[in-house]
Amino acid sequence: MQRIKMTLSYDGTAFNGYQIQPNGRTVQEEVQCALKQMHKGASIPITGSGRTDARVHAHGQIIHFDTPLSIPSENWTRALNAQLPQDVRVLHTETAPSDFHARYDVVRKTYQYRVHNRAASDVFRRNYAVHEPHPLNVKEMRRAAAHLIGEHDFTSFCASKTDVKNKVRTIYRIEIERIQDELVFTFEGSGFLYNMVRILMGTFLEIGRGRRSANELVSILEAKDRNTAGKTAPPHGLYLLEVSYR
Amino acid sequence: MQRIKMTLSYDGTAFNGYQIQPNGRTVQEEVQCALKQMHKGASIPITGSGRTDARVHAHGQIIHFDTPLSIPSENWTRALNAQLPQDVRVLHTETAPSDFHARYDVVRKTYQYRVHNRAASDVFRRNYAVHEPHPLNVKEMRRAAAHLIGEHDFTSFCASKTDVKNKVRTIYRIEIERIQDELVFTFEGSGFLYNMVRILMGTFLEIGRGRRSANELVSILEAKDRNTAGKTAPPHGLYLLEVSYR
Repeated sequence: MQRIKMTLSYDGTAFNGYQIQPNGRTVQEEVQCALKQMHKGASIPITGSGRTDARVHAHGQIIHFDTPLSIPSENWTRALNAQLPQDVRVLHTETAPSDFHARYDVVRKTYQYRVHNRAASDVFRRNYAVHEPHPLNVKEMRRAAAHLIGEHDFTSFCASKTDVKNKVRTIYRIEIERIQDELVFTFEGSGFLYNMVRILMGTFLEIGRGRRSANELVSILEAKDRNTAGKTAPPHGLYLLEVSYR
Repeated sequence: MQRIKMTLSYDGTAFNGYQIQPNGRTVQEEVQCALKQMHKGASIPITGSGRTDARVHAHGQIIHFDTPLSIPSENWTRALNAQLPQDVRVLHTETAPSDFHARYDVVRKTYQYRVHNRAASDVFRRNYAVHEPHPLNVKEMRRAAAHLIGEHDFTSFCASKTDVKNKVRTIYRIEIERIQDELVFTFEGSGFLYNMVRILMGTFLEIGRGRRSANELVSILEAKDRNTAGKTAPPHGLYLLEVSYR
């Protein structure tokens, strides 16, 4: 048996999220279905670095699985892509040590969130960026972001329906760049709780609109109460960009 | 009655083209359906500047129609967008003289064609640019384009199934720009025959790959025979960018 590590990219628009479920099309199911064809009907379960919600995109989701086949890495990429639907692609394949784990060995994750910030909406971005027609105060959102850098208990920024006990995470970097008519938010951290990036984004957007002040971040973190933070921003602006391992 | 001129943008991916037909979803039908709701069930036929094929996109399709309603232009845009599906948007509305005609009064049309020119395909551009993994000789394609500028009989670049008799058109400009990992082709002309931009693109791509020489354009034009030109390039790289009137 050989453990394989793969980098996947997918357009989340037509997926009901990453993780397999009874109803709806998922990334995990499509990949396992393609692997099954390559393994003459044998089931090959895959493990991802984490879930992504319905309509959330990925440039660099990481998965691992074990296979009895010996195929050179480049050929894995080509062979699986030939079986996969067009909205999920293998970008890279490599062999990994037999104890490599796509979820437990993560040391850093990077997400991006795209906000199309112009009066008129753009038909070509309706599934790929959140449209915010009103001006946003970038300076104030950057001040808010500064409060989050470092190790914190992010209970206030975690969806209530979660099994995770320890809600302490470290955020290494939050960057807000203006790229033409978009604001692109980059979040880099040790890991992120369920809906954490989307709740952070919902809070930033309220601050950008002037409905909250940047300093409120301090009391929101201290409250450890989901109700004190902003709304959960829509899924389709979010991209899992990169997952790093030791 | 008031004649209205509107600018539409649409993502062609889920449309069976612009023009209404018995089977399949079309842009014309969606717009007429939205207008019907605004006119309490009365049918309001619209006229476009021309058809676009299934999966072809538009940044600036122009339509006209007549209406008994008196509504300020800005409100037309907002009201129709509220009724339309998300993949077609009104960008601009203005009142027009009663003899304005969206098709007959066209003096210039501009199309763009996007080629994603990198080894690996990109899941987010699969419906918005044609993927060409092999290197393309831009200099040679520009030499080919130069042969087409001016007034020519474009019979060789017109799909055989057409009713149009006069196949003389004028091309004012063909530009080929490299923008990051894409080649963007811009075509500006007095008008374009059925499939003309796509057949021009198919021919350019064969020249870019070194399968034909730029000088062949001269004999292809002279032959007045569709079989002498290249293949018809796929629809999803094509955008109707702008329509100009006198």
